[in-house]
Amino acid sequence: MSKTDWIAVDWGTSHLRAYAMSGGSVLDERMSEDGMGSLERDQFEGALLALVSDWLGTRTPVLACGMVGARQGWVEAPYASVPTAVDQVKMVNAPTLDPRLDVRVLPGVKQANPADVMRGEETQIAGFLALNKGWDGVICLPGTHSKWALVSADEIVSFQTFMTGELFALLSEQSVLRHSLAAGGWDDTAFAEALSDAMARPEKLAAKLFSIRADNLINGTAAEVSRPRLSGLLIGAELAAARPYWLGQQVAVVGAPELARLYVKALAEQGVPATHVHGDRMTIAGLNAARLREGISA
Amino acid sequence: MSKTDWIAVDWGTSHLRAYAMSGGSVLDERMSEDGMGSLERDQFEGALLALVSDWLGTRTPVLACGMVGARQGWVEAPYASVPTAVDQVKMVNAPTLDPRLDVRVLPGVKQANPADVMRGEETQIAGFLALNKGWDGVICLPGTHSKWALVSADEIVSFQTFMTGELFALLSEQSVLRHSLAAGGWDDTAFAEALSDAMARPEKLAAKLFSIRADNLINGTAAEVSRPRLSGLLIGAELAAARPYWLGQQVAVVGAPELARLYVKALAEQGVPATHVHGDRMTIAGLNAARLREGISA
Repeated sequence: MSKTDWIAVDWGTSHLRAYAMSGGSVLDERMSEDGMGSLERDQFEGALLALVSDWLGTRTPVLACGMVGARQGWVEAPYASVPTAVDQVKMVNAPTLDPRLDVRVLPGVKQANPADVMRGEETQIAGFLALNKGWDGVICLPGTHSKWALVSADEIVSFQTFMTGELFALLSEQSVLRHSLAAGGWDDTAFAEALSDAMARPEKLAAKLFSIRADNLINGTAAEVSRPRLSGLLIGAELAAARPYWLGQQVAVVGAPELARLYVKALAEQGVPATHVHGDRMTIAGLNAARLREGISA
Repeated sequence: MSKTDWIAVDWGTSHLRAYAMSGGSVLDERMSEDGMGSLERDQFEGALLALVSDWLGTRTPVLACGMVGARQGWVEAPYASVPTAVDQVKMVNAPTLDPRLDVRVLPGVKQANPADVMRGEETQIAGFLALNKGWDGVICLPGTHSKWALVSADEIVSFQTFMTGELFALLSEQSVLRHSLAAGGWDDTAFAEALSDAMARPEKLAAKLFSIRADNLINGTAAEVSRPRLSGLLIGAELAAARPYWLGQQVAVVGAPELARLYVKALAEQGVPATHVHGDRMTIAGLNAARLREGISA
């Protein structure tokens, strides 16, 4: 069995994901709920050790991206500013007590106007470009905070964040709509109709949300229709606002398969060719590219 | 001191408000957290008695509106359908054990297409029309679920609900934006700019929300700017979607003064004359009008 010669870490607000790596290959992976949002600065090392200590050798390089590099994270890795080359990343060393750990944190990217920030997605973009040399176009990263990034000549030129995933979670779990969305099921047609409706008349979004509840109350509309309708409205609003990004472009959708499938289909209906690549794989590829570039090894 | 000859009750999802009445005059008022959302069917009588038992005579009429008449409420008061005359309301008796109580619940109003419902606002509208005989126009009732209603010849002709208040609460208290909105303060200019921006380009709403957080992170924008900006974006989105309601109409804004002020000002900037009337007063006037019509007395 191969030995872990480095560890790739995707450390977001709510989760910590770690991959035992041998070169570019994943030997093992683990996840915990020790997200950056629940940790004080002096708790990061312990959270990491709790997850990966049996993977460590005498001194094992750990490369981490995501909110772990925020001001409230383990160590602040200052943002790079757009336009920024994805292959010139200044990593920051995180302070550690355990001599087996050699931890570097990758910086996020910021944009002054319109104001925007990312932490973690820049590494997925770098991973995608490492695997697709010379690719120009738009990368869409759907999720809690969806990002759309214009990429050219190995640079992130500009980007825009949408709170689509967080809005869906808040509305479906905590708003009055939760009563109408509680049950499971999914209807593709309801999604497509709501999406098309939101894209055609995005100014009506605010009026469409409560209709989901009312339609359930009056007409008994099932959750398997209500849920994709909410999803379609929110993704439709995102696509309407992101139109300058995808119009006339080739698009790569980087994310979890189920969610990415919805974006690829929606873009296809707008005549935009979009391909799907797996988000976790891009994170690992981006961290590995940074490792190789810096010549980091155990 | 006058005697309580009836009790007006505004019973919503989260609160119970009761008014000791002598004719059309309020003698006393009380509020509790025993909203319909936290009560089982057999707990409504106890919640009411806990609040008002010392107001009761031998047999005291109680008129109640709001979510208390929902299917999950004290007793279901079936919806009237638009168009519906506000002065022909079929009240439903609530089952009671205490012989001092004579409780009637007013129905809500529903609309088939687009699907919509209201419970409580129809009574405020009836109160407004009782105090403003022959008034035709549009009534805007901002709040957790804002309503816009077209009123003509003492009928509610059509209406539309917006989740503006609930969205503001969820985004400002539970989303990533909470970090940027926590402090107090309010800047009128920031509100006006965000409102105007959202109304001019409502399709950009989904892109504007995260900017509030990013602008705070990158430029240190204060909460006193971030908070009115979120409010302006959401109210602007509501006004953009409600344009068919208010365009070329006279508008009455029925609600709490602080919130209503924002709507009146926003409408004025669109050249729409809007007046503000107090929401609680309209609820009481609507319940009193129903009482007089039915000849209900102690």
